[in-house]
Amino acid sequence: MSLPAEIRLRPIGCVRSPFHDPAEIPKGKGAKHEAEGTIELRPELVEGLRDIEGFSHLFVIWCFDRSEGFDLLSQPPNADRPHGVFATRSPRRPNPLGLTVVELLGREGHVLRVRGVDMLDGTPVLDLKPYLSSVPAEKLRRGWLTEAGA
Amino acid sequence: MSLPAEIRLRPIGCVRSPFHDPAEIPKGKGAKHEAEGTIELRPELVEGLRDIEGFSHLFVIWCFDRSEGFDLLSQPPNADRPHGVFATRSPRRPNPLGLTVVELLGREGHVLRVRGVDMLDGTPVLDLKPYLSSVPAEKLRRGWLTEAGA
Repeated sequence: MSLPAEIRLRPIGCVRSPFHDPAEIPKGKGAKHEAEGTIELRPELVEGLRDIEGFSHLFVIWCFDRSEGFDLLSQPPNADRPHGVFATRSPRRPNPLGLTVVELLGREGHVLRVRGVDMLDGTPVLDLKPYLSSVPAEKLRRGWLTEAGA
Repeated sequence: MSLPAEIRLRPIGCVRSPFHDPAEIPKGKGAKHEAEGTIELRPELVEGLRDIEGFSHLFVIWCFDRSEGFDLLSQPPNADRPHGVFATRSPRRPNPLGLTVVELLGREGHVLRVRGVDMLDGTPVLDLKPYLSSVPAEKLRRGWLTEAGA
């Protein structure tokens, strides 16, 4: 396997959310992510948002910037035993990347109003992409989360 | 906006796919991503895959490592005019991050067999996450792609 040793990214903007402490973010069984917030892009990137209003939902790729180090096994609050970190959404991952689907409520210039934020206020955003299609419900298996009743 | 100047990531592994040239990857209207391939993690990360077999689909966050530079506007093959890069899946993005949903077919140690790869062979992988839920079809709007008939 020949891999680049390092990939360097620069945030395109940040999240403004009502959450200032990880404990405030709904987690685990039955957690609903209905919180509203904004995604503020660096103003010089505003042209990159042209026509984004046509999409109802966006993928946000972001950085767990207040997480340090990682564990290969993680026991989420709704789990009865540890699971591999790649089978969880733990912040303590080899690369501290987060992924959230948000509903796009509106745009004012370089600022997107969104619903469904589960990031801390000030979280750096690395990329935005249109959410295009879904896996049909009947084809989806939800692994240990099924047992956990979540 | 106070943002970290730079975020450094190290690939967790790479994609093995049948595609060696971007032209071989199905794109645009009606493109189906049924190609099978593997995701080979760095062997020392194998424990991070524990219980991942229970999930039918995974998010793969990866790096467009053969793309250089970016454009704020991009005209995909199925578009009749340029759109903001964040409203497209163009590889020429401010951060060269790709996101693909794959179906997990099986695992042998640190190697995952998957269906639905749309990456070039050798593409660095940055993170894997379980695909947990879908936006209901009736709530999804697909922006300029609707007009494009894709």
